[in-house]
Amino acid sequence: MGPIMSAETRLAEKLSELGLDMPPAPEPKGLYRPLVVVGDMAYTSGHLPVDAAGRLVTGRVGDDVDIPTATHAALLTGLSILATLRGELGSLDRIRRLVKLLGAVNGTAEFTEQPAVINGCSQLLADIFGPDAGIAARSAIGVASLPLGVPVEIEAVFQVEV
Amino acid sequence: MGPIMSAETRLAEKLSELGLDMPPAPEPKGLYRPLVVVGDMAYTSGHLPVDAAGRLVTGRVGDDVDIPTATHAALLTGLSILATLRGELGSLDRIRRLVKLLGAVNGTAEFTEQPAVINGCSQLLADIFGPDAGIAARSAIGVASLPLGVPVEIEAVFQVEV
Amino acid sequence: MGPIMSAETRLAEKLSELGLDMPPAPEPKGLYRPLVVVGDMAYTSGHLPVDAAGRLVTGRVGDDVDIPTATHAALLTGLSILATLRGELGSLDRIRRLVKLLGAVNGTAEFTEQPAVINGCSQLLADIFGPDAGIAARSAIGVASLPLGVPVEIEAVFQVEV
Repeated sequence: MGPIMSAETRLAEKLSELGLDMPPAPEPKGLYRPLVVVGDMAYTSGHLPVDAAGRLVTGRVGDDVDIPTATHAALLTGLSILATLRGELGSLDRIRRLVKLLGAVNGTAEFTEQPAVINGCSQLLADIFGPDAGIAARSAIGVASLPLGVPVEIEAVFQVEV
Repeated sequence: MGPIMSAETRLAEKLSELGLDMPPAPEPKGLYRPLVVVGDMAYTSGHLPVDAAGRLVTGRVGDDVDIPTATHAALLTGLSILATLRGELGSLDRIRRLVKLLGAVNGTAEFTEQPAVINGCSQLLADIFGPDAGIAARSAIGVASLPLGVPVEIEAVFQVEV
Repeated sequence: MGPIMSAETRLAEKLSELGLDMPPAPEPKGLYRPLVVVGDMAYTSGHLPVDAAGRLVTGRVGDDVDIPTATHAALLTGLSILATLRGELGSLDRIRRLVKLLGAVNGTAEFTEQPAVINGCSQLLADIFGPDAGIAARSAIGVASLPLGVPVEIEAVFQVEV
């Protein structure tokens, strides 16, 4: 985990450790772009949990989805964000730091462990970008419903090399 | 739609095509400003759907509001954002690009087509600012309730000429 | 309230007027930082309402929490944001202006006065940073649930001296 190891190398190792392949970079679901870069700030759209075959994870936490499944969905959402960054920037090694995450969890009114769910994404990004550059200011909220019935949607802001 | 045509000209044409007049620039509903500009970034408050007479659209999607009505409300919300920008900046021609949208849709727990609703705003902004500068990174979420009972609330970040 | 009085002085006076002590700077509830600064922009995590003893305020507005209690919880959330800023920046006098607030109110589906609740935080920040620098672009939304069952969660963006 020294300074020589790149984010791309860490991601390859992490995928191997998890036994996962990268999901495809997401196609926009509407009139938006997955990433907009202004100056050295890169704003992602809200990303959804998809597996390597492009299948969406769906369901509501506290109803038909449990916390481990939702946390894994947040990890998949993080991989989808990384797929967008790599596709748009060419390499994850152009990322200087993760700045901000907003995570919305589709859960029952009684569900109050949104931070534990969003940690699935935050842990991935900390593993890839390191314990300083990979940890964001973050908000986690509970919402009544999400696009296509997914359990989690996450948007991110990164600082990038220009 | 060439580079010579300004955003102000496009807006005038769009209003004529839609048979709509501009809504009034919104008055703050609390202790906030409609727009704050820092450097070349302009952050809008969450805007609500109002018509040219200043009447709010209210209701919940999937309950007493259908998708076409909610999508039109998102368009009206976009016009309200444009009214704020014009009022604060003097002209829409000072906008360099749309950067980010966050759209919250007040819907039932079963409603999962938030992106289709927010497209009402996104299509307007793409028409006014063009297919490059007018398309944002975007998140669309479903929420349990919104101020004053509106079906949609949208906030936007723009890059502006300084 | 002239230009000579610092934000730190105003906060001391405000706490005295309210009969409140500062809450402790919050410990992260997950894999995030309370504040990330990039250039002259400081992004806070979503903060929760805690009192000076570190006890969380919990409940749902329109159910077991009324508007005055929720508005006071938003004020406490603002104090928690100030505790984070002071802890991370050394002094509130390094704040140039408040830029953006996003306030999520945990309320019933019928509750539509989110702006009145978030005003509890906005009034505090206006009192501390003044009627120009202390008033933000703001969105207030209603959500189905929040971390640990709190009635309100607020994130803020500030411009800071560098």
